Amino acid sequence: MPHLSDRVQRTFQSPFRKFLPLAQQAKDRGIQVIHLNIGQPDFSMPKGAMDGIKASNDSYIPYGTAEGQTPLRQAWCRYYERFNIHLDYTELIITSGASEGIYFTLMGIADAGDEIIVPEPFYANYNGFSEMAGVTIVPLPSSIEDGFPIPDASAFEAAITPKTKGILISNPNNPSGKIYDEGTLRSLAALAVKHDIFLLVDEAYSEFVYENHRFFSALCIEGAEKHIVVIDSISKRFNACGTRVGALASRNTDLLQEIARYARLRLCPPMLGQAFALHALQLPGDYHEGVRQEFSKRRALVLDRLNDIPDALYHAPEGAFYLFVRLPIDDSDRFCAWLLTDFDHQGKTVMLSPGTGFYATPGMGKDEVRIAYILNSERLSEGMDCLEHALTVYPGATKLSQATLV
Amino acid sequence: MPHLSDRVQRTFQSPFRKFLPLAQQAKDRGIQVIHLNIGQPDFSMPKGAMDGIKASNDSYIPYGTAEGQTPLRQAWCRYYERFNIHLDYTELIITSGASEGIYFTLMGIADAGDEIIVPEPFYANYNGFSEMAGVTIVPLPSSIEDGFPIPDASAFEAAITPKTKGILISNPNNPSGKIYDEGTLRSLAALAVKHDIFLLVDEAYSEFVYENHRFFSALCIEGAEKHIVVIDSISKRFNACGTRVGALASRNTDLLQEIARYARLRLCPPMLGQAFALHALQLPGDYHEGVRQEFSKRRALVLDRLNDIPDALYHAPEGAFYLFVRLPIDDSDRFCAWLLTDFDHQGKTVMLSPGTGFYATPGMGKDEVRIAYILNSERLSEGMDCLEHALTVYPGATKLSQATLV
Repeated sequence: MPHLSDRVQRTFQSPFRKFLPLAQQAKDRGIQVIHLNIGQPDFSMPKGAMDGIKASNDSYIPYGTAEGQTPLRQAWCRYYERFNIHLDYTELIITSGASEGIYFTLMGIADAGDEIIVPEPFYANYNGFSEMAGVTIVPLPSSIEDGFPIPDASAFEAAITPKTKGILISNPNNPSGKIYDEGTLRSLAALAVKHDIFLLVDEAYSEFVYENHRFFSALCIEGAEKHIVVIDSISKRFNACGTRVGALASRNTDLLQEIARYARLRLCPPMLGQAFALHALQLPGDYHEGVRQEFSKRRALVLDRLNDIPDALYHAPEGAFYLFVRLPIDDSDRFCAWLLTDFDHQGKTVMLSPGTGFYATPGMGKDEVRIAYILNSERLSEGMDCLEHALTVYPGATKLSQATLV
Repeated sequence: MPHLSDRVQRTFQSPFRKFLPLAQQAKDRGIQVIHLNIGQPDFSMPKGAMDGIKASNDSYIPYGTAEGQTPLRQAWCRYYERFNIHLDYTELIITSGASEGIYFTLMGIADAGDEIIVPEPFYANYNGFSEMAGVTIVPLPSSIEDGFPIPDASAFEAAITPKTKGILISNPNNPSGKIYDEGTLRSLAALAVKHDIFLLVDEAYSEFVYENHRFFSALCIEGAEKHIVVIDSISKRFNACGTRVGALASRNTDLLQEIARYARLRLCPPMLGQAFALHALQLPGDYHEGVRQEFSKRRALVLDRLNDIPDALYHAPEGAFYLFVRLPIDDSDRFCAWLLTDFDHQGKTVMLSPGTGFYATPGMGKDEVRIAYILNSERLSEGMDCLEHALTVYPGATKLSQATLV
């Protein structure tokens, strides 16, 4: 057969999904797989979320505007008003999920060989999008021992080279759960202005913050209007990940207009998803209050269960719905695969994301996994049962004292 | 503001869409714009096409499988059975429109600097996707004087270099309306096997053939299973362009599995569009028979009207729903812009796609435009009225005899 491209063969393998064939094989063997590998909660959408689509009388589904439908862009801006973010609809374009928004932005601000600075650990697929765009991630390490502190502005500044085109962060951070406070964001924005680079902030989890933590949007920062780009999505907001509707928001409309060249090539974002989003963004009520309460319970459950696992190191997440945990294991890829190929506990096993994919630095994350606390308490408990038992029998377990082995 | 990337600034501008801001300005001045610039017909979808989505009782819209939902892949294969195409569902993956399928395929078969051979004129956005992927289009010219003949296999072979990774054609061809007959397709497949390169066939318009012409799918060719990739879409098939649901079909499942790495990065194709497609592909009836009859009428109308335009050169399209026409004009970009900025006929004007974008060879298409015959007869007539009058007053008109000027 003809050769495939070198680039496709070395393309980053999504840590959330690369073991799905193993999960399927486990299911084929009759084993229940509890999916804590991907940020797909089991919550209902807001009541009435589908009504917009169900009421449709359109006789056909035409191409839309490349930048997204104007009513949706306007509705998204009105939604932002709830959080004191004031944007004109021309300052926001719709993308096919946040994924496309990240990729288009990388393509729009950086040429092949350019660099972006990203604190580790980060949303794993940044690795893949950077590879596709030929952009080099310059990682800023932070350590689980220290609680994944956000690097301070001087660390970011030290990493800037003539090839640096931007800083990319997620806030709240996936997978560490850390939140960037207003002061840190302002100092990063000032740094972006000083060096005339972009500050890209992925705010997909903005609604998910716990305890006394507060989310501050980069769109509220004055004085860096040309430098700040926010990546957003309805996926997590309304538990509608499959609609593939995201947005890029920036007061730098020149940038958005240039990025729209890529948008025009793919014609338009999905129109049914946009019809859904238009309706969902205008629903009244405090859907997120209830969601946050439920996530808080699930978060507490996992923290409580991790407390019983010897040598597990973790920190209570401030936002999002993940726990990034160091476990007494030799190799997280091997462990996560083994959970699916060689383990079950009472006919069940758990699927996790190996930590390696969340770093650009080779060798990092080898004893870390990401747990998504996205299922109901019963399922989550079963998943944690599996993890706890697995660690007592996993051949690559390390540092467990003999007493804890069954 | 920070510099944008060089690549975004030189990215191909879609000929279907680059003048939309001018169209909006015309509308703002109270002028009706008749859109014959884009392949967006005004037909109704098949009866009941939305029923699948309207019946949904799902409480949330989760991420799906990166390769598309298995029931949809199976339904698509069953749909192909109607045309004697026999595929297993593992031989077809779902993409976010044919657009994504083309882009992923280019990324999967070619590295930056590699080449693909494409006969001119071609679907304009191939230019943009090739640029994004860093792949060079090696064009094979064909001339409107000769009726845009499909180059024979020896012309393709002469263009093959060590960097050639594939041949990309659309069948029926957009914009020329030419159809590749079975013999030509078989000879291109044999050429692909001989040189161990891919033959990519964009079959988005497979249902739209006229008079005694017949469509032959590349999926029916034996002996080139590892070399043939078909790009398909429900956009034109069900007049649901906005759903953004396409497919890549190939018996080379190794290729599809590698391409799935890109698919996993963007998580999944749009789920609402997939729910729509699953239902639509299973609808009984002969929807396309009626559609073809109506398109035949519209095609006849435009051909008839072009017959009255002095110095217009065109050929009856065999398939798809476009006419690629040489007009007595100095510059098709200038003409298409002028139609929107400086012209109206009884308060109306027509938007067309300039021919230049459908070539990779600089300078080609300068006196050619694409007319999409996608509106009802009344609107189409009004559009052709506008074109006819415009040519009598356009300052850059050429070759018109004095007698035809009003």
